[in-house]
Amino acid sequence: MKNPTNVRAIEWRGDCLRLLDQRRLPGSEQYLDCHDSAAVAEAIRDMAVRGAPAIGIAAAYGVVLAAKGDAGSGRVRQAIDLLARARPTAVNLHWALNRMRAVLAAGTAGLQPALLEEARRIHEEDIAANLQMAAYGAALLQPGSRVMTHCNTGALATGGHGTALGVIRTAYAAGNISRVYAGETRPWLQGARLTAWELQRENIPFALLCDGAAASLMREDGIDWVIVGADRVAANGDTANKIGTYSLAVAARHHGVKFMVVAPASTVDMNVAQGGDIPVEHRPAEEITRLGGQTVAAAGIEAWNPVFDVTPAGLIDALVTEKGVIEHPDPAKMRQRFGAPD
Amino acid sequence: MKNPTNVRAIEWRGDCLRLLDQRRLPGSEQYLDCHDSAAVAEAIRDMAVRGAPAIGIAAAYGVVLAAKGDAGSGRVRQAIDLLARARPTAVNLHWALNRMRAVLAAGTAGLQPALLEEARRIHEEDIAANLQMAAYGAALLQPGSRVMTHCNTGALATGGHGTALGVIRTAYAAGNISRVYAGETRPWLQGARLTAWELQRENIPFALLCDGAAASLMREDGIDWVIVGADRVAANGDTANKIGTYSLAVAARHHGVKFMVVAPASTVDMNVAQGGDIPVEHRPAEEITRLGGQTVAAAGIEAWNPVFDVTPAGLIDALVTEKGVIEHPDPAKMRQRFGAPD
Repeated sequence: MKNPTNVRAIEWRGDCLRLLDQRRLPGSEQYLDCHDSAAVAEAIRDMAVRGAPAIGIAAAYGVVLAAKGDAGSGRVRQAIDLLARARPTAVNLHWALNRMRAVLAAGTAGLQPALLEEARRIHEEDIAANLQMAAYGAALLQPGSRVMTHCNTGALATGGHGTALGVIRTAYAAGNISRVYAGETRPWLQGARLTAWELQRENIPFALLCDGAAASLMREDGIDWVIVGADRVAANGDTANKIGTYSLAVAARHHGVKFMVVAPASTVDMNVAQGGDIPVEHRPAEEITRLGGQTVAAAGIEAWNPVFDVTPAGLIDALVTEKGVIEHPDPAKMRQRFGAPD
Repeated sequence: MKNPTNVRAIEWRGDCLRLLDQRRLPGSEQYLDCHDSAAVAEAIRDMAVRGAPAIGIAAAYGVVLAAKGDAGSGRVRQAIDLLARARPTAVNLHWALNRMRAVLAAGTAGLQPALLEEARRIHEEDIAANLQMAAYGAALLQPGSRVMTHCNTGALATGGHGTALGVIRTAYAAGNISRVYAGETRPWLQGARLTAWELQRENIPFALLCDGAAASLMREDGIDWVIVGADRVAANGDTANKIGTYSLAVAARHHGVKFMVVAPASTVDMNVAQGGDIPVEHRPAEEITRLGGQTVAAAGIEAWNPVFDVTPAGLIDALVTEKGVIEHPDPAKMRQRFGAPD
């Protein structure tokens, strides 16, 4: 399937996996050619590739690289374990690697072709799911809507097109969006570095803002929808996403702004009953106290630096997956759409 | 009056005004010696000195410098005009310069001694007001409270002690605070650069956080009060303060966290009926797109970058000035405390 955007962040090249090195954006567009699974694991760990769906796709191709030259299934299994440890809390990573494990377990004669076929399928299904989500999400917007987004959920974070940013691309093309506001997304600045870069390439009118300015923006400039992605969705609809998402959800509710979560069904984890059960990684203070190689705060101080926050289902107006839209998600609607826990 | 903290950000040295250069904190403690009023105006314009009360005090001493060597009142008047243009929207700056103008108008024989006496009085009254506000504000907290603050409102922003951070200092000393959370305060990072530095010097237990994490902190870690300063308070209690304050007020209300504004009475502007009438300066995109000399977002993009936001009186539980506490401010209570508009 053709990538529907002009951004190619993940590309299978036959002998290697080519990744757009997202750490260097927007300053320069450099590509990393990964020739073995260890290089892919490193790219995932060091955040050269990021975004839950993109990580899963890259890891799947990483498994293919481990099977090069008729390597035995033992070596492939080791590569899967290595890739799984690269970002332990990423649910899509484990979902994709489980699909690759199933191919391995099936014991096909031509192992590498079978693994490559599965990796390609994961990639293509992701793009197809993005386009399906984008169609569902865009249809919820009135013509000329003003929307706000957070972090990066675009072609860079997925197989192509994007989740929340995919909705924004499709809705803009359909005339349903007049203007986008992108939060810079501290501490990693994915909004400033990546989303602004994607929106600029697509010629979508937008402005960047500091995360703390969002509530004021909603009151002053009339936002219709906040549209965000998800790292994990619990069985009751509670949603873990990049830190800052919950602040937006609270501000949106206060101002009567609607709140949409867009994520592939693989992000839904029916085995986690509620948001409070989702483990949230806390990261070092240096992510906040150092900026661009410079120290911006006194040395040795503490920071409160969780990677994710959890937005309760009660603040979510629409959960969009490729399986359709769930308005005001609750445990019954979630079970009906996604089935019972394992 | 002795400065009650160990930070001396503004010091009159007889022949010059010594300012702690806040642009270089926390990396280095360098002082600027201003020998004439133009140097003081430059320090205000370039934000070597910042914080509404501190700007007013520095400007008053700047007027004293203009009267050196028996300069005529014409030259002093020119200096006042120059200083007034350094930060046109700062209400305390104009309040302090009006007091200096009144001394000039009184036509005292020894002009410089009279101006110096008035500048010293403005400085000492500010410290006294800070200590009075701190006592009023600290008394509102229960023992062991967990509080959150924004921007820098400490000894660096005032004549000494601080407004919101003054309440925190006094309350901590009295055992009414167990832990402080400081928002980093994008885009200028006054929380990371200045408040963290002051809290560390005072050995007050604290953690720094990204502004977007505040709502999650309130839910996860049980905050009792948000305590902030103000740049201007309207006649109905609506309060303009550093961008990000309003997001905190919305999140505080959602979580049942109390919200306190601490500001000297000189910040109250009874001639402005409501917050919507307070002009809000918008600043260039580069403040967001460049960080520590590096470009973090695609070139040439737009940003939505207001310096202040307005928190409506309805979200304020307590407005603390040196004249006392107003709970749930409204036009009648404000008029009773601060008098009718001019």
